[in-house]
Amino acid sequence: MERPGLEVCLSPALLHLYDTAGAVVVIIDIFRATSTITAALHNGAKCVIPVASVAECISIGDHIPDSITAGERDGKVADGLQHGNSPSEYPTPFVKGKTLVLTTTNGTRLLHMIKDADTIIIGSFLNLSAVCSYLVKQNKKVLLGCASWKDRFNLEDTLFAGAVVNNIGHAFEINCDAAQAAKHLYDSSGGNYIEFLKDSSHYKRLSKFGLEPDMIYCATPDLHPVVPFLQGKEIII
Amino acid sequence: MERPGLEVCLSPALLHLYDTAGAVVVIIDIFRATSTITAALHNGAKCVIPVASVAECISIGDHIPDSITAGERDGKVADGLQHGNSPSEYPTPFVKGKTLVLTTTNGTRLLHMIKDADTIIIGSFLNLSAVCSYLVKQNKKVLLGCASWKDRFNLEDTLFAGAVVNNIGHAFEINCDAAQAAKHLYDSSGGNYIEFLKDSSHYKRLSKFGLEPDMIYCATPDLHPVVPFLQGKEIII
Repeated sequence: MERPGLEVCLSPALLHLYDTAGAVVVIIDIFRATSTITAALHNGAKCVIPVASVAECISIGDHIPDSITAGERDGKVADGLQHGNSPSEYPTPFVKGKTLVLTTTNGTRLLHMIKDADTIIIGSFLNLSAVCSYLVKQNKKVLLGCASWKDRFNLEDTLFAGAVVNNIGHAFEINCDAAQAAKHLYDSSGGNYIEFLKDSSHYKRLSKFGLEPDMIYCATPDLHPVVPFLQGKEIII
Repeated sequence: MERPGLEVCLSPALLHLYDTAGAVVVIIDIFRATSTITAALHNGAKCVIPVASVAECISIGDHIPDSITAGERDGKVADGLQHGNSPSEYPTPFVKGKTLVLTTTNGTRLLHMIKDADTIIIGSFLNLSAVCSYLVKQNKKVLLGCASWKDRFNLEDTLFAGAVVNNIGHAFEINCDAAQAAKHLYDSSGGNYIEFLKDSSHYKRLSKFGLEPDMIYCATPDLHPVVPFLQGKEIII
Protein backbone atom coordinates (compact mmCIF):
# COMPACT_ATOMS: atom_id res chain seq x y z
CA MET A 1 0.00 0.00 0.00
CA GLU A 2 1.26 3.42 -0.86
CA ARG A 3 2.23 5.52 2.11
CA PRO A 4 0.95 9.09 2.34
CA GLY A 5 3.44 11.92 2.02
CA LEU A 6 4.91 13.92 4.87
CA GLU A 7 6.48 17.34 4.38
CA VAL A 8 7.82 20.08 6.63
CA CYS A 9 7.22 23.77 5.96
CA LEU A 10 9.90 25.79 7.77
CA SER A 11 8.18 29.19 7.66
CA PRO A 12 4.75 30.65 6.86
CA ALA A 13 6.53 32.55 4.06
CA LEU A 14 7.08 29.20 2.34
CA LEU A 15 3.55 27.88 2.83
CA HIS A 16 2.51 28.66 -0.77
CA LEU A 17 4.96 25.97 -1.94
CA TYR A 18 2.90 23.22 -0.34
CA ASP A 19 -0.41 21.70 -1.33
CA THR A 20 -2.42 21.48 1.88
CA ALA A 21 -5.63 20.29 0.20
CA GLY A 22 -6.73 17.12 1.94
CA ALA A 23 -3.78 17.17 4.31
CA VAL A 24 -3.57 17.02 8.05
CA VAL A 25 -1.66 20.18 8.95
CA VAL A 26 0.12 20.36 12.28
CA ILE A 27 0.60 23.91 13.55
CA ILE A 28 3.84 24.14 15.54
CA ASP A 29 4.71 27.13 17.71
CA ILE A 30 6.68 25.58 20.55
CA PHE A 31 7.59 28.85 22.32
CA ARG A 32 4.77 29.11 23.27
CA ALA A 33 1.39 29.29 21.54
CA THR A 34 0.82 25.66 20.68
CA SER A 35 2.26 24.54 24.02
CA THR A 36 -0.11 26.84 25.90
CA ILE A 37 -3.12 25.77 23.82
CA THR A 38 -2.35 22.11 24.45
CA ALA A 39 -1.89 22.62 28.20
CA ALA A 40 -5.02 24.75 28.62
CA LEU A 41 -7.25 22.27 26.79
CA HIS A 42 -5.85 19.25 28.62
CA ASN A 43 -6.40 21.13 31.86
CA GLY A 44 -10.07 21.50 31.08
CA ALA A 45 -10.55 24.66 29.04
CA LYS A 46 -13.77 24.47 27.03
CA CYS A 47 -12.04 25.75 23.92
CA VAL A 48 -9.36 28.11 22.68
CA ILE A 49 -10.16 30.84 20.17
CA PRO A 50 -6.98 31.98 18.42
CA VAL A 51 -7.09 35.57 17.18
CA ALA A 52 -4.59 37.79 15.43
CA SER A 53 -4.87 41.10 17.28
CA VAL A 54 -5.23 42.39 20.82
CA ALA A 55 -8.30 44.40 19.79
CA GLU A 56 -10.00 41.29 18.39
CA CYS A 57 -9.08 39.39 21.55
CA ILE A 58 -10.76 42.00 23.75
CA SER A 59 -13.80 42.26 21.49
CA ILE A 60 -14.43 38.51 21.38
CA GLY A 61 -13.75 38.13 25.09
CA ASP A 62 -16.39 40.78 25.81
CA HIS A 63 -19.07 38.65 24.16
CA ILE A 64 -18.27 35.26 25.70
CA PRO A 65 -19.19 34.43 29.29
CA ASP A 66 -16.46 32.68 31.29
CA SER A 67 -13.79 33.76 28.87
CA ILE A 68 -10.17 34.64 29.51
CA THR A 69 -8.40 37.05 27.21
CA ALA A 70 -4.73 36.31 26.87
CA GLY A 71 -1.67 37.28 24.90
CA GLU A 72 1.72 38.88 25.18
CA ARG A 73 3.70 41.41 23.31
CA ASP A 74 7.43 41.58 24.01
CA GLY A 75 7.18 39.11 26.86
CA LYS A 76 4.52 40.97 28.84
CA VAL A 77 0.75 40.65 29.07
CA ALA A 78 -0.54 42.91 26.32
CA ASP A 79 -2.39 46.05 27.38
CA GLY A 80 -6.09 45.36 27.80
CA LEU A 81 -5.73 41.58 28.20
CA GLN A 82 -5.99 39.57 31.41
CA HIS A 83 -3.34 36.92 31.07
CA GLY A 84 -0.16 35.93 29.29
CA ASN A 85 1.03 33.24 26.95
CA SER A 86 2.53 30.81 29.44
CA PRO A 87 1.29 27.23 29.74
CA SER A 88 1.82 27.46 33.50
CA GLU A 89 -0.85 30.17 33.79
CA TYR A 90 -3.63 27.74 32.94
CA PRO A 91 -3.91 25.04 35.62
CA THR A 92 -7.17 23.13 35.94
CA PRO A 93 -8.69 25.11 38.85
CA PHE A 94 -8.36 28.29 36.86
CA VAL A 95 -9.09 27.25 33.30
CA LYS A 96 -11.69 24.47 33.64
CA GLY A 97 -14.79 25.14 31.57
CA LYS A 98 -13.54 28.49 30.35
CA THR A 99 -12.97 29.81 26.86
CA LEU A 100 -9.43 31.02 26.29
CA VAL A 101 -9.29 33.80 23.72
CA LEU A 102 -5.61 33.86 22.79
CA THR A 103 -3.70 36.25 20.57
CA THR A 104 -0.23 35.25 19.42
CA THR A 105 1.90 36.58 16.63
CA ASN A 106 3.26 33.57 14.82
CA GLY A 107 1.16 30.48 15.56
CA THR A 108 -2.17 32.23 15.03
CA ARG A 109 -1.05 33.71 11.77
CA LEU A 110 0.01 30.39 10.30
CA LEU A 111 -3.19 28.75 11.48
CA HIS A 112 -5.29 31.37 9.73
CA MET A 113 -3.28 30.98 6.52
CA ILE A 114 -4.30 27.32 6.06
CA LYS A 115 -7.44 27.28 3.93
CA ASP A 116 -8.12 23.85 2.48
CA ALA A 117 -6.67 21.26 4.84
CA ASP A 118 -8.55 18.15 5.82
CA THR A 119 -7.79 18.88 9.48
CA ILE A 120 -5.70 21.40 11.38
CA ILE A 121 -4.23 20.14 14.63
CA ILE A 122 -1.98 21.64 17.29
CA GLY A 123 1.46 20.16 17.93
CA SER A 124 3.93 20.69 20.76
CA PHE A 125 6.35 18.58 22.74
CA LEU A 126 3.65 18.47 25.41
CA ASN A 127 1.53 16.28 23.13
CA LEU A 128 4.22 14.81 20.86
CA SER A 129 3.27 11.14 21.19
CA ALA A 130 -0.46 11.86 20.96
CA VAL A 131 0.07 13.84 17.75
CA CYS A 132 2.24 11.08 16.29
CA SER A 133 -0.32 8.38 17.03
CA TYR A 134 -3.07 10.52 15.58
CA LEU A 135 -1.16 11.17 12.35
CA VAL A 136 -0.42 7.51 11.78
CA LYS A 137 -4.05 6.54 12.39
CA GLN A 138 -5.36 9.15 9.96
CA ASN A 139 -3.25 7.71 7.14
CA LYS A 140 -3.49 10.98 5.20
CA LYS A 141 -0.77 13.21 3.88
CA VAL A 142 0.78 15.46 6.50
CA LEU A 143 2.27 18.92 6.53
CA LEU A 144 4.21 19.90 9.63
CA GLY A 145 3.93 23.68 9.67
CA CYS A 146 6.49 25.62 11.67
CA ALA A 147 5.13 28.97 12.81
CA SER A 148 8.71 30.28 13.01
CA TRP A 149 9.48 33.77 14.30
CA LYS A 150 8.15 36.54 12.09
CA ASP A 151 8.71 34.21 9.13
CA ARG A 152 12.28 33.42 10.17
CA PHE A 153 13.32 29.81 10.50
CA ASN A 154 13.57 28.75 14.11
CA LEU A 155 15.20 25.82 15.82
CA GLU A 156 12.47 24.88 18.27
CA ASP A 157 9.64 24.37 15.79
CA THR A 158 11.95 22.50 13.41
CA LEU A 159 13.25 20.31 16.22
CA PHE A 160 9.69 19.29 17.01
CA ALA A 161 9.10 18.48 13.34
CA GLY A 162 12.25 16.36 13.48
CA ALA A 163 10.96 14.51 16.53
CA VAL A 164 7.77 13.67 14.62
CA VAL A 165 9.76 12.49 11.60
CA ASN A 166 11.92 10.41 13.90
CA ASN A 167 8.93 8.79 15.58
CA ILE A 168 6.64 8.10 12.63
CA GLY A 169 8.58 8.85 9.46
CA HIS A 170 8.55 5.14 8.59
CA ALA A 171 4.78 5.33 8.04
CA PHE A 172 5.08 8.07 5.43
CA GLU A 173 6.70 8.73 2.08
CA ILE A 174 9.22 11.50 2.65
CA ASN A 175 10.70 13.36 -0.28
CA CYS A 176 11.30 16.68 1.39
CA ASP A 177 14.70 18.06 2.29
CA ALA A 178 13.23 20.12 5.12
CA ALA A 179 11.96 16.92 6.73
CA GLN A 180 15.40 15.34 6.32
CA ALA A 181 17.03 18.38 7.88
CA ALA A 182 14.55 18.38 10.76
CA LYS A 183 15.35 14.72 11.41
CA HIS A 184 19.06 15.55 11.45
CA LEU A 185 18.38 18.29 14.00
CA TYR A 186 16.49 15.78 16.12
CA ASP A 187 19.42 13.38 15.89
CA SER A 188 21.80 16.18 16.90
CA SER A 189 19.69 16.88 19.98
CA GLY A 190 19.91 13.28 21.15
CA GLY A 191 16.37 13.81 22.43
CA ASN A 192 17.58 16.37 24.98
CA TYR A 193 15.40 19.12 23.64
CA ILE A 194 15.96 21.92 26.10
CA GLU A 195 19.75 21.62 26.09
CA PHE A 196 19.69 21.71 22.31
CA LEU A 197 17.45 24.76 22.28
CA LYS A 198 19.56 26.84 24.64
CA ASP A 199 21.50 28.02 21.58
CA SER A 200 18.36 29.20 19.81
CA SER A 201 17.62 32.87 19.33
CA HIS A 202 14.13 32.47 20.83
CA TYR A 203 15.53 30.90 24.00
CA LYS A 204 17.91 33.81 24.39
CA ARG A 205 15.15 36.34 23.75
CA LEU A 206 12.68 34.80 26.19
CA SER A 207 15.39 34.24 28.81
CA LYS A 208 15.71 38.00 29.08
CA PHE A 209 12.12 38.04 30.32
CA GLY A 210 12.88 35.35 32.92
CA LEU A 211 10.96 32.71 30.98
CA GLU A 212 13.40 29.78 31.27
CA PRO A 213 10.94 27.74 33.38
CA ASP A 214 8.33 28.20 30.67
CA MET A 215 10.68 26.95 28.00
CA ILE A 216 11.75 23.95 30.07
CA TYR A 217 8.05 23.13 30.44
CA CYS A 218 7.41 23.57 26.71
CA ALA A 219 10.28 21.21 25.87
CA THR A 220 8.97 18.38 28.08
CA PRO A 221 7.36 15.59 26.07
CA ASP A 222 3.90 14.20 26.68
CA LEU A 223 2.77 16.12 29.73
CA HIS A 224 -0.55 16.81 28.00
CA PRO A 225 -1.50 13.83 25.79
CA VAL A 226 -4.34 15.36 23.79
CA VAL A 227 -4.77 16.32 20.14
CA PRO A 228 -6.35 19.77 19.85
CA PHE A 229 -7.96 20.46 16.48
CA LEU A 230 -9.61 23.39 14.80
CA GLN A 231 -13.39 23.28 14.43
CA GLY A 232 -14.76 26.42 12.89
CA LYS A 233 -13.03 29.20 14.80
CA GLU A 234 -12.47 27.16 17.93
CA ILE A 235 -9.70 24.80 18.93
CA ILE A 236 -11.07 21.90 20.94
CA ILE A 237 -10.11 18.38 21.99
CA MET B 1 36.41 44.56 18.71
CA GLU B 2 32.88 43.79 17.68
CA ARG B 3 32.57 40.94 15.25
CA PRO B 4 30.41 41.40 12.17
CA GLY B 5 27.19 39.39 11.91
CA LEU B 6 26.73 36.24 9.88
CA GLU B 7 23.31 34.98 8.82
CA VAL B 8 21.98 32.23 6.60
CA CYS B 9 18.99 32.70 4.29
CA LEU B 10 17.52 29.29 3.48
CA SER B 11 15.44 30.30 0.46
CA PRO B 12 15.05 33.28 -1.90
CA ALA B 13 11.46 33.47 -0.60
CA LEU B 14 12.90 34.52 2.77
CA LEU B 15 15.39 37.05 1.43
CA HIS B 16 13.18 40.03 2.34
CA LEU B 17 13.76 39.21 6.01
CA TYR B 18 17.45 40.06 5.75
CA ASP B 19 19.20 43.38 5.47
CA THR B 20 21.80 42.91 2.76
CA ALA B 21 22.89 46.57 2.67
CA GLY B 22 26.64 46.66 3.13
CA ALA B 23 26.88 42.89 3.39
CA VAL B 24 28.97 40.39 1.55
CA VAL B 25 26.39 38.01 0.10
CA VAL B 26 27.46 34.51 -0.88
CA ILE B 27 25.27 32.94 -3.57
CA ILE B 28 25.08 29.18 -3.04
CA ASP B 29 23.67 26.82 -5.67
CA ILE B 30 25.72 23.66 -5.18
CA PHE B 31 23.87 21.47 -7.73
CA ARG B 32 25.14 23.02 -9.95
CA ALA B 33 25.22 26.69 -10.95
CA THR B 34 27.74 28.07 -8.48
CA SER B 35 29.92 24.97 -8.83
CA THR B 36 29.99 25.36 -12.61
CA ILE B 37 30.69 29.10 -12.43
CA THR B 38 33.59 28.51 -10.04
CA ALA B 39 35.07 25.73 -12.17
CA ALA B 40 34.75 27.63 -15.45
CA LEU B 41 36.40 30.76 -14.08
CA HIS B 42 39.24 28.87 -12.42
CA ASN B 43 39.76 27.03 -15.70
CA GLY B 44 40.29 30.31 -17.50
CA ALA B 45 36.92 31.62 -18.64
CA LYS B 46 37.08 35.38 -19.14
CA CYS B 47 33.80 35.88 -17.31
CA VAL B 48 30.41 34.34 -16.66
CA ILE B 49 27.22 36.24 -17.45
CA PRO B 50 24.31 34.78 -15.50
CA VAL B 51 20.92 35.26 -17.15
CA ALA B 52 17.41 34.21 -16.25
CA SER B 53 16.01 32.89 -19.52
CA VAL B 54 17.08 30.80 -22.47
CA ALA B 55 16.02 33.58 -24.85
CA GLU B 56 18.20 36.11 -23.02
CA CYS B 57 21.07 33.64 -23.06
CA ILE B 58 20.86 33.24 -26.84
CA SER B 59 20.44 36.97 -27.41
CA ILE B 60 23.47 37.94 -25.29
CA GLY B 61 25.56 35.09 -26.74
CA ASP B 62 24.84 36.38 -30.26
CA HIS B 63 26.45 39.72 -29.44
CA ILE B 64 29.61 38.51 -27.71
CA PRO B 65 32.52 37.01 -29.64
CA ASP B 66 34.02 33.86 -28.16
CA SER B 67 30.98 33.22 -26.06
CA ILE B 68 29.43 29.93 -25.01
CA THR B 69 25.71 29.77 -24.32
CA ALA B 70 24.85 27.25 -21.66
CA GLY B 71 22.01 26.04 -19.53
CA GLU B 72 19.77 23.10 -18.87
CA ARG B 73 16.12 22.47 -18.38
CA ASP B 74 15.09 19.14 -16.87
CA GLY B 75 18.63 17.78 -17.01
CA LYS B 76 19.20 18.39 -20.71
CA VAL B 77 20.88 21.20 -22.67
CA ALA B 78 18.09 23.68 -23.30
CA ASP B 79 16.89 24.07 -26.86
CA GLY B 80 18.91 26.73 -28.67
CA LEU B 81 21.89 26.60 -26.29
CA GLN B 82 25.27 25.00 -26.93
CA HIS B 83 26.21 23.46 -23.61
CA GLY B 84 24.92 22.24 -20.28
CA ASN B 85 25.29 23.11 -16.63
CA SER B 86 27.98 20.65 -15.66
CA PRO B 87 31.31 21.81 -14.21
CA SER B 88 33.01 19.01 -16.15
CA GLU B 89 32.01 20.56 -19.45
CA TYR B 90 34.34 23.49 -18.98
CA PRO B 91 37.98 22.32 -18.89
CA THR B 92 40.72 24.83 -19.64
CA PRO B 93 41.31 23.92 -23.30
CA PHE B 94 37.67 24.58 -24.04
CA VAL B 95 36.79 27.52 -21.84
CA LYS B 96 39.98 29.59 -21.66
CA GLY B 97 39.39 33.21 -22.65
CA LYS B 98 35.75 32.66 -23.40
CA THR B 99 32.61 34.27 -22.01
CA LEU B 100 30.19 31.79 -20.55
CA VAL B 101 26.60 33.01 -20.81
CA LEU B 102 24.79 30.78 -18.35
CA THR B 103 21.10 30.45 -17.60
CA THR B 104 20.07 28.63 -14.45
CA THR B 105 16.79 28.61 -12.59
CA ASN B 106 17.65 29.05 -8.95
CA GLY B 107 21.14 30.53 -8.54
CA THR B 108 20.64 33.22 -11.16
CA ARG B 109 17.33 34.27 -9.70
CA LEU B 110 18.73 34.74 -6.20
CA LEU B 111 21.72 36.64 -7.56
CA HIS B 112 19.47 39.07 -9.40
CA MET B 113 17.34 39.61 -6.29
CA ILE B 114 20.24 41.08 -4.28
CA LYS B 115 20.15 44.82 -4.77
CA ASP B 116 22.24 46.64 -2.19
CA ALA B 117 25.01 44.33 -1.06
CA ASP B 118 28.60 45.48 -0.65
CA THR B 119 29.76 42.51 -2.70
CA ILE B 120 28.16 39.42 -4.22
CA ILE B 121 30.39 36.38 -4.41
CA ILE B 122 29.92 32.80 -5.59
CA GLY B 123 30.23 29.92 -3.14
CA SER B 124 30.53 26.19 -3.69
CA PHE B 125 32.39 23.30 -2.12
CA LEU B 126 34.86 23.69 -5.00
CA ASN B 127 36.02 27.00 -3.52
CA LEU B 128 34.99 26.54 0.13
CA SER B 129 38.31 27.47 1.75
CA ALA B 130 38.89 30.38 -0.60
CA VAL B 131 35.46 31.79 0.20
CA CYS B 132 36.03 31.35 3.94
CA SER B 133 39.38 33.14 3.85
CA TYR B 134 37.88 35.94 1.80
CA LEU B 135 34.96 36.45 4.19
CA VAL B 136 37.22 36.64 7.24
CA LYS B 137 39.52 39.14 5.53
CA GLN B 138 36.66 41.40 4.50
CA ASN B 139 35.50 41.73 8.11
CA LYS B 140 32.01 42.77 6.99
CA LYS B 141 28.65 41.29 7.78
CA VAL B 142 27.85 38.19 5.76
CA LEU B 143 24.70 36.67 4.36
CA LEU B 144 24.99 33.11 3.10
CA GLY B 145 22.21 32.89 0.52
CA CYS B 146 20.94 29.44 -0.41
CA ALA B 147 19.46 29.40 -3.91
CA SER B 148 17.33 26.39 -2.91
CA TRP B 149 15.10 24.59 -5.42
CA LYS B 150 12.22 26.72 -6.66
CA ASP B 151 12.20 28.41 -3.26
CA ARG B 152 12.16 25.10 -1.39
CA PHE B 153 14.75 24.50 1.28
CA ASN B 154 17.44 22.12 0.11
CA LEU B 155 20.07 20.12 1.92
CA GLU B 156 23.06 20.75 -0.33
CA ASP B 157 23.06 24.55 -0.16
CA THR B 158 22.40 24.50 3.56
CA LEU B 159 25.17 21.96 4.13
CA PHE B 160 27.60 24.29 2.39
CA ALA B 161 26.42 27.15 4.60
CA GLY B 162 27.05 24.88 7.57
CA ALA B 163 30.57 24.14 6.38
CA VAL B 164 31.25 27.89 6.22
CA VAL B 165 29.83 28.41 9.72
CA ASN B 166 31.95 25.51 10.95
CA ASN B 167 35.13 26.92 9.41
CA ILE B 168 34.83 30.62 10.23
CA GLY B 169 31.84 31.07 12.54
CA HIS B 170 34.24 32.03 15.36
CA ALA B 171 35.08 35.24 13.50
CA PHE B 172 31.45 36.37 13.37
CA GLU B 173 28.56 37.18 15.67
CA ILE B 174 25.90 34.58 14.97
CA ASN B 175 22.37 35.13 16.20
CA CYS B 176 20.55 33.24 13.50
CA ASP B 177 18.82 29.90 13.99
CA ALA B 178 19.28 29.02 10.33
CA ALA B 179 23.04 29.34 10.78
CA GLN B 180 22.86 27.12 13.87
CA ALA B 181 20.82 24.54 11.99
CA ALA B 182 23.23 24.63 9.05
CA LYS B 183 26.11 24.00 11.45
CA HIS B 184 24.24 21.03 12.94
CA LEU B 185 23.76 19.65 9.42
CA TYR B 186 27.48 20.03 8.81
CA ASP B 187 28.20 18.18 12.05
CA SER B 188 25.80 15.42 11.02
CA SER B 189 27.66 15.01 7.73
CA GLY B 190 30.98 14.49 9.49
CA GLY B 191 32.46 16.35 6.53
CA ASN B 192 31.49 13.52 4.15
CA TYR B 193 29.40 15.74 1.96
CA ILE B 194 28.41 13.44 -0.86
CA GLU B 195 27.34 10.58 1.40
CA PHE B 196 25.22 13.02 3.39
CA LEU B 197 23.64 14.43 0.25
CA LYS B 198 22.61 11.07 -1.21
CA ASP B 199 19.38 11.39 0.78
CA SER B 200 18.58 14.79 -0.70
CA SER B 201 15.76 15.26 -3.16
CA HIS B 202 18.06 17.03 -5.63
CA TYR B 203 20.53 14.13 -5.62
CA LYS B 204 17.71 11.74 -6.39
CA ARG B 205 16.34 13.98 -9.14
CA LEU B 206 19.70 14.50 -10.85
CA SER B 207 20.64 10.83 -10.47
CA LYS B 208 17.81 9.97 -12.81
CA PHE B 209 19.66 11.96 -15.48
CA GLY B 210 22.90 10.03 -14.82
CA LEU B 211 24.51 13.00 -13.11
CA GLU B 212 26.07 11.27 -10.07
CA PRO B 213 29.63 12.03 -11.29
CA ASP B 214 28.68 15.71 -11.50
CA MET B 215 27.38 15.73 -7.96
CA ILE B 216 30.45 13.95 -6.61
CA TYR B 217 32.53 16.63 -8.32
CA CYS B 218 30.38 19.43 -6.90
CA ALA B 219 30.76 18.01 -3.38
CA THR B 220 34.56 17.93 -3.52
CA PRO B 221 36.16 20.74 -1.52
CA ASP B 222 38.72 23.17 -2.85
CA LEU B 223 39.31 21.88 -6.37
CA HIS B 224 38.97 25.46 -7.66
CA PRO B 225 40.36 27.90 -5.08
CA VAL B 226 39.07 31.18 -6.47
CA VAL B 227 36.50 33.73 -5.31
CA PRO B 228 34.23 34.74 -8.20
CA PHE B 229 32.42 38.02 -7.66
CA LEU B 230 29.81 40.05 -9.49
CA GLN B 231 30.98 43.20 -11.27
CA GLY B 232 28.19 44.87 -13.14
CA LYS B 233 26.52 42.04 -15.02
CA GLU B 234 29.61 39.82 -15.13
CA ILE B 235 31.01 37.34 -12.70
CA ILE B 236 34.80 37.44 -12.72
CA ILE B 237 37.75 36.42 -10.55
